[in-house]
Amino acid sequence: MSTKATVGIVMGSDSDLPVMQAAAEFLQQLEIPFELTIVSAHRTPERMLHYASTSKQRGLQVIIAGAGGAAHLPGMLASITTLPIIGVPIKSSNSIDGWDSILSILQMPNGVPVATVALNAAKNAGILAAQIIALQNKKVSKALENYKTSMQNEVLKKVKLTSKKWNNEYDKK
Amino acid sequence: MSTKATVGIVMGSDSDLPVMQAAAEFLQQLEIPFELTIVSAHRTPERMLHYASTSKQRGLQVIIAGAGGAAHLPGMLASITTLPIIGVPIKSSNSIDGWDSILSILQMPNGVPVATVALNAAKNAGILAAQIIALQNKKVSKALENYKTSMQNEVLKKVKLTSKKWNNEYDKK
Amino acid sequence: MSTKATVGIVMGSDSDLPVMQAAAEFLQQLEIPFELTIVSAHRTPERMLHYASTSKQRGLQVIIAGAGGAAHLPGMLASITTLPIIGVPIKSSNSIDGWDSILSILQMPNGVPVATVALNAAKNAGILAAQIIALQNKKVSKALENYKTSMQNEVLKKVKLTSKKWNNEYDKK
Amino acid sequence: MSTKATVGIVMGSDSDLPVMQAAAEFLQQLEIPFELTIVSAHRTPERMLHYASTSKQRGLQVIIAGAGGAAHLPGMLASITTLPIIGVPIKSSNSIDGWDSILSILQMPNGVPVATVALNAAKNAGILAAQIIALQNKKVSKALENYKTSMQNEVLKKVKLTSKKWNNEYDKK
Amino acid sequence: MSTKATVGIVMGSDSDLPVMQAAAEFLQQLEIPFELTIVSAHRTPERMLHYASTSKQRGLQVIIAGAGGAAHLPGMLASITTLPIIGVPIKSSNSIDGWDSILSILQMPNGVPVATVALNAAKNAGILAAQIIALQNKKVSKALENYKTSMQNEVLKKVKLTSKKWNNEYDKK
Amino acid sequence: MSTKATVGIVMGSDSDLPVMQAAAEFLQQLEIPFELTIVSAHRTPERMLHYASTSKQRGLQVIIAGAGGAAHLPGMLASITTLPIIGVPIKSSNSIDGWDSILSILQMPNGVPVATVALNAAKNAGILAAQIIALQNKKVSKALENYKTSMQNEVLKKVKLTSKKWNNEYDKK
Amino acid sequence: MSTKATVGIVMGSDSDLPVMQAAAEFLQQLEIPFELTIVSAHRTPERMLHYASTSKQRGLQVIIAGAGGAAHLPGMLASITTLPIIGVPIKSSNSIDGWDSILSILQMPNGVPVATVALNAAKNAGILAAQIIALQNKKVSKALENYKTSMQNEVLKKVKLTSKKWNNEYDKK
Amino acid sequence: MSTKATVGIVMGSDSDLPVMQAAAEFLQQLEIPFELTIVSAHRTPERMLHYASTSKQRGLQVIIAGAGGAAHLPGMLASITTLPIIGVPIKSSNSIDGWDSILSILQMPNGVPVATVALNAAKNAGILAAQIIALQNKKVSKALENYKTSMQNEVLKKVKLTSKKWNNEYDKK
Repeated sequence: MSTKATVGIVMGSDSDLPVMQAAAEFLQQLEIPFELTIVSAHRTPERMLHYASTSKQRGLQVIIAGAGGAAHLPGMLASITTLPIIGVPIKSSNSIDGWDSILSILQMPNGVPVATVALNAAKNAGILAAQIIALQNKKVSKALENYKTSMQNEVLKKVKLTSKKWNNEYDKK
Repeated sequence: MSTKATVGIVMGSDSDLPVMQAAAEFLQQLEIPFELTIVSAHRTPERMLHYASTSKQRGLQVIIAGAGGAAHLPGMLASITTLPIIGVPIKSSNSIDGWDSILSILQMPNGVPVATVALNAAKNAGILAAQIIALQNKKVSKALENYKTSMQNEVLKKVKLTSKKWNNEYDKK
Repeated sequence: MSTKATVGIVMGSDSDLPVMQAAAEFLQQLEIPFELTIVSAHRTPERMLHYASTSKQRGLQVIIAGAGGAAHLPGMLASITTLPIIGVPIKSSNSIDGWDSILSILQMPNGVPVATVALNAAKNAGILAAQIIALQNKKVSKALENYKTSMQNEVLKKVKLTSKKWNNEYDKK
Repeated sequence: MSTKATVGIVMGSDSDLPVMQAAAEFLQQLEIPFELTIVSAHRTPERMLHYASTSKQRGLQVIIAGAGGAAHLPGMLASITTLPIIGVPIKSSNSIDGWDSILSILQMPNGVPVATVALNAAKNAGILAAQIIALQNKKVSKALENYKTSMQNEVLKKVKLTSKKWNNEYDKK
Repeated sequence: MSTKATVGIVMGSDSDLPVMQAAAEFLQQLEIPFELTIVSAHRTPERMLHYASTSKQRGLQVIIAGAGGAAHLPGMLASITTLPIIGVPIKSSNSIDGWDSILSILQMPNGVPVATVALNAAKNAGILAAQIIALQNKKVSKALENYKTSMQNEVLKKVKLTSKKWNNEYDKK
Repeated sequence: MSTKATVGIVMGSDSDLPVMQAAAEFLQQLEIPFELTIVSAHRTPERMLHYASTSKQRGLQVIIAGAGGAAHLPGMLASITTLPIIGVPIKSSNSIDGWDSILSILQMPNGVPVATVALNAAKNAGILAAQIIALQNKKVSKALENYKTSMQNEVLKKVKLTSKKWNNEYDKK
Repeated sequence: MSTKATVGIVMGSDSDLPVMQAAAEFLQQLEIPFELTIVSAHRTPERMLHYASTSKQRGLQVIIAGAGGAAHLPGMLASITTLPIIGVPIKSSNSIDGWDSILSILQMPNGVPVATVALNAAKNAGILAAQIIALQNKKVSKALENYKTSMQNEVLKKVKLTSKKWNNEYDKK
Repeated sequence: MSTKATVGIVMGSDSDLPVMQAAAEFLQQLEIPFELTIVSAHRTPERMLHYASTSKQRGLQVIIAGAGGAAHLPGMLASITTLPIIGVPIKSSNSIDGWDSILSILQMPNGVPVATVALNAAKNAGILAAQIIALQNKKVSKALENYKTSMQNEVLKKVKLTSKKWNNEYDKK
């Protein structure tokens, strides 16, 4: 596997980075090569156009795009390329509790889908990208199943602690 | 006054026309030359880029842009040109009561304003455009004042009918 | 290409079919083999568990799941399989304007993403599934690009009609 | 009274415990035997299935289930067992002001009810469970009436303090 | 089993009857004796007080209360009696999409729970009441399990029809 | 009692009349003299200023003001006169489910209250005005008590019908 | 002027006092005699019934009632007495941003109005009560006009400071 | 260029100044003469009337008006003058997450538009005012284009830092 990026992670502003890097971290953990940069729909529209229209030929398979407020970046990328776009609504400072980001990413018209994840859920965007990559990559596929198991085990570990503390019959069985 | 358009009226889809033509009708009434066409942010992003980036040199002074759902057209135009952009949120069929259109037009980030009017209020967009044109055009300025007076007179006419029917003392004075 | 389904389309109730078949129609148009059936999270939880846990080995690559109200189907499928799940919030009869379906599909916790599309946007779910399939299927990839072009052409055709009717200078150029 | 649990208290994550233990505390106060553990719909779906499908035979009479965000646990338990399920919507960190938890617990389809209480109102879930247990348990029934009286007395004590401070005529009578 | 009512079904107005009778019908189907009447919190507050304060001694075990708008009936009943109260928010004519009914029934303060079901979900209120009655009544308990199975079978019947029509491989297995 | 109006009923537009006349009808029924007319905050601001500033000296004791959308009439009247202003939010055609009217009438700043009633609840505005008038008018006071009794009787009549039809034990007692 | 209370200020809990005392302070400032106490609709329903049903004969003219969450106190008082009730929605700790309090106070059914003021706006409730008292009390009426003037003067004082600082031409004139 | 103000910046209270001065700062930066003062719709309605009705003859070309809660200032100014009014919804202390300010500024009736910008977006109001002034002022027009370029450059600078840190291939090209 070359180190050529297969996932693009873009965001409207560097203030989105603290939220968005959870996507990068998940991809790193699964050794999926990615690129991360800033692409502002509203401040660098031509860069956005260029980024999206060259994405396929550059080898990207999925683009994760995070934005807050009137969040146009995910939808505009989807208008330019046919790669699957994953949108991360971000609750930024002047956002109205995140409703603006969610609705302006989610409610795309027919013909131009954006795969929207939960508010600030950049990690889930990373997982979703990995699930798509996994369809052609057994190693990633296996890693995702391991991740699912590890999540389950983490819960079970907490079950143990809780059951002990509360003297829970059910988990003794 | 030449007939070269000074106001551009664009909308994301021809299904927005029944709402948006109220803007055109108001401009016609005030003899402000305009152009009206369809520019879809999501289906014709390059046309949108071209439309916006040539708008100033083509002589436009204001652009009115209407869109529904995840409405990106007004904000994207504003990202390309420095002309004032008036956004009309449209309550389209699968819109969530119009909240999606309103928030994705209104909540633009710092640096890239969109002058948003009420849901479906294309007529108000036309009036706002005329108010901007009027700053350099005495005829339009006068016409707007006449329009304001005529609105008032229309109310006063209804006051008369109502007061008569309800035998209202106040309006006898 | 075999006719073995690569996309599963499931919905909570047959009353969701009028909305959900738009996904099927798009896949048919692109000759992507799919299966469509009813899987109710709340009335047939074991069927749901079986459907999801056998989906990968049966050759599915993506699952599209539509549900209304407290819509648990997409999220529960995602809890069982690592295949990408596309969720379609449906505005059913006693839904609160669709907010319930949207939020109970979208707001999944970390670790278990659902790729959510707009309210009732089953067609976009179909397109998104095709975009994922296209990463390994050149024919589908090409078909998607053609579809994008055809959408653009459809807009341009309407531009022509509109520009003619409104005598639009811009589109004469 | 044996110490065999008659109420099950489950929650999606140990981060819900600070909210959920108010239910446990109320049951303890009324000496109603309960079990408390973690059952994640999204991370341990099979544990959830097992927990719910054995609940009746294990002697549970009511299950209290708390969850945040796209909260599927209460509804999924209700899909498996016919025991009454009490759902506690939790305002978790990335929840949208609690709306997501409320709607994904409350808006269950016909046939599969969840008895939903207020946001974060785990204590009320405990009281509601006790009210159900009380129908077959005179001691609990009496204890609930005493609790109601004590709440009233607590208010009346504050009335006294307030009336004194504000020299209230009404409460002198 | 005597025919003395064990479930009370009350509603704020006879205009709520078309919604509320779904609760009655479910109880009838399971042969659970109930009483149905109108009790308005706002127009007959003393009747409400009397109804609630005599409910326990009259043999009721559960009260189902439906109301729309600023819906105070369920919560006020809960303030008077320690019987479990099931609240049905009703989307009445001048309700704001049902939000008012939902929030004024659901958001009860600590100490006074109301078991709230979905908007207009009177049938679910009936089922929930039956689930509570079933804890002391094997016949009802059995009937509820049969109802659950019948719901499942109804889905499976539709699965058959759908799978046939769409030639679904999965359900052939 | 002279026929000089003690209550003013004003509305922003004659399209509000079908809603607002319920206030007039209630006042007529109680023989409280009122005046009804159109006063538009946005189209006749000076008329509004005059209406409000002369209201006290003209003998008005309460003003009922109905408006839809960005409803400024009630609040602006309250800014000019110290008479109590009752605001009726109206769900007009392009209103966003009435939220706009409610919030722009209700959320007045400190110092300038508006007594807001429910969406479209002009009748309640009429009753509230009568309750205020009644403080100095025994006849109106008595009439209001009779009205309260008649509402109760109307419910009790329906109780009878319902109880008969459903063979309700409770109401036989 | 006797010291017999003409305004009753009640609230559901002593935790509402920090908000509600703004009403008391305004009445004190205008020397309007009032009583302030705690009346919980949900914890002391009979006290509430007694308070409301004796209010008129005890000489009250207006009741101000504050409550949070599923706020039933104002509406229930209005169901018992024909005195004008002013409702103050309070944003309590587990309230959903105040929406629950607002809607459960505002959206009263026809026949039973509550004069609702803004979220937490107890001062405005005090002013509204004074406006009602003023109709029969010239001293209060004069005091209210003075208060209006003083508010205006306070603004004008700030205008002066601001205009100076920003060298504002308009206010020099 | 004279120093006579062409833009008026007004706000309902001096507590709005921290938000509103961003508009002033932008205009200063572009050397557009402005005046800034306090005009309260609710506390100084006559000052508001005078301000608006003299605005045109005093040489103003645009008015920026900020207000919170039931924000009537922008709409009332628009009812008096035909100058373009830019409304800035402000999230004040007792505002309901800003929804009240947004809706009471945005949802103006036909005939009386307000150009609404995002919540607290006073800077965008300043830019929009400059865009309108720029139509007759080449210096301002040029400055706005420079500002647009500088925003883009600022993003590109951050792109560089980010790309370096994350070793981004795309931006090496």
